[in-house]
Amino acid sequence: MATSIACAVIGCGPAGASAALNLKIRNIPFVLFDPGQSYRWRTAERIDNYLGLPACSGEDFLRAIKAHLDQMSIAIMPSRISAIQYDDDHFFQVIAGQETWQCKSMILATGVTMAKELPGESDLLGRGVSYCATCDGPLYRHKVVAVIDTTGGDGMEEVYYLSGIAQTVYYLPVKSIPSPATLTALTARAANIKVLQGVPKAIHGDEVVRSLELDNTTQALDGVFILRPTQRAEQLLPGLATTEGAITVDALMRTNLPGVFAAGDCTGKPYQFARAVGQGAIAGLSVASYLSN
Amino acid sequence: MATSIACAVIGCGPAGASAALNLKIRNIPFVLFDPGQSYRWRTAERIDNYLGLPACSGEDFLRAIKAHLDQMSIAIMPSRISAIQYDDDHFFQVIAGQETWQCKSMILATGVTMAKELPGESDLLGRGVSYCATCDGPLYRHKVVAVIDTTGGDGMEEVYYLSGIAQTVYYLPVKSIPSPATLTALTARAANIKVLQGVPKAIHGDEVVRSLELDNTTQALDGVFILRPTQRAEQLLPGLATTEGAITVDALMRTNLPGVFAAGDCTGKPYQFARAVGQGAIAGLSVASYLSN
Repeated sequence: MATSIACAVIGCGPAGASAALNLKIRNIPFVLFDPGQSYRWRTAERIDNYLGLPACSGEDFLRAIKAHLDQMSIAIMPSRISAIQYDDDHFFQVIAGQETWQCKSMILATGVTMAKELPGESDLLGRGVSYCATCDGPLYRHKVVAVIDTTGGDGMEEVYYLSGIAQTVYYLPVKSIPSPATLTALTARAANIKVLQGVPKAIHGDEVVRSLELDNTTQALDGVFILRPTQRAEQLLPGLATTEGAITVDALMRTNLPGVFAAGDCTGKPYQFARAVGQGAIAGLSVASYLSN
Repeated sequence: MATSIACAVIGCGPAGASAALNLKIRNIPFVLFDPGQSYRWRTAERIDNYLGLPACSGEDFLRAIKAHLDQMSIAIMPSRISAIQYDDDHFFQVIAGQETWQCKSMILATGVTMAKELPGESDLLGRGVSYCATCDGPLYRHKVVAVIDTTGGDGMEEVYYLSGIAQTVYYLPVKSIPSPATLTALTARAANIKVLQGVPKAIHGDEVVRSLELDNTTQALDGVFILRPTQRAEQLLPGLATTEGAITVDALMRTNLPGVFAAGDCTGKPYQFARAVGQGAIAGLSVASYLSN
């Protein structure tokens, strides 16, 4: 079922796009994922310090990226990544929606995630808190779970998938909430799907998750799946070393995990196009060298 | 006599130019030196991997750099740097021809120097071998010295300067040799200037320099000044740490010397525009932060 590929590039901002150019030139088969990139910089009125493109706006820069990728025949795969798993042979499984990609190497170029964690989220991670229904759903047979969805509706497929396993699945859309008709269509798909309304405040538990606190109620349950447009790389990839919230890399953009490289804002400050593009290029070339060894 | 400035950027290729953009935006007074940049890449037919400028030639890229600098009103100062000196207060003296610039910080963006050293050159550095007549000339009072000049004639002023100190100054132009009329004019300036013809092969000595071996003769002497269009940064700046010939930097482009930053090919491989531009941007911002502390 898994598609095999030499490299997965996760993120298609300046760092990911730059990495992709270099992989393409080196003839390395890769997939360039757009995991719901926010491009916070796209509203920038004027950027003066990316050498070669004087006085360009954020929109200009985004157009320049897309034009360059087009010109090199590089496609972008829009797909939220819910998890990455790996084994001792350094093969990675990238779980992107319902699809799984198996790759020998990857470049994390996920940018900066602004999402705040819920109280209790980190503490209970792996003990009832999960970011991936496909990975962890089977653990909740006949149990009660909730899906907190801040992606604008992407989580509904995972809710349906979980409804085939769990006793009850609560769907809690946050921020951009699907239309009432869409929500009715969702609950019509399985009797054990229920929509929750409210703002999540905290996850409570002891050894395991016990309840989800909203602004208007508290729901007793066994598991909480949190789906965000983008996820911090260290949440996606257990064991990835970070320093003050940024992925730790060396001068060749290697992380602590063999075969995993990172570039751009996810590796820390300063948050700059030039830095991201430069690191992306290095990461692409480092992957080429990693794969040839 | 020295001009004071907050930052000196040495090199105006992709890394130096990118650093300059960022210094300009941060309102930091700086001087951008072109120490005889060779732009080895300018003959490149097609560069595909600098994000935002698809399928551009080396000449296109050079034009884009100059246009961006022009657009930001950043001037380039053409000036071979012969030495950099510093004291314990971390003030640097950049000796550029007959001028001295005093600066609080600097960014080394000197690219890769391809020049091969002469046998004996490193071993006898500081014991008769020098790269800077202005700095070390006074040590050779009433002695015999030679100036090996591969700059195409820039060294003639330094020969004349040395003729006021040394007993005899041999001028050995290499590669691009000034016209006979120019050489005659030089020897007419002082009776103790003599032109040597030949190809330098080695510098010999024990505790100190004793002779310069050419392909056709060996000249006994006390000192050899070697003038190249660009010089390796660690030759310019004593005490600068390098790793396998590249300047050692951290993620913020700091070298081992406080106030000294480096960016681009002089910090190692891969030699790529994107990397150089990214590192230049980081170095510029790091200088801003260094100066504000």
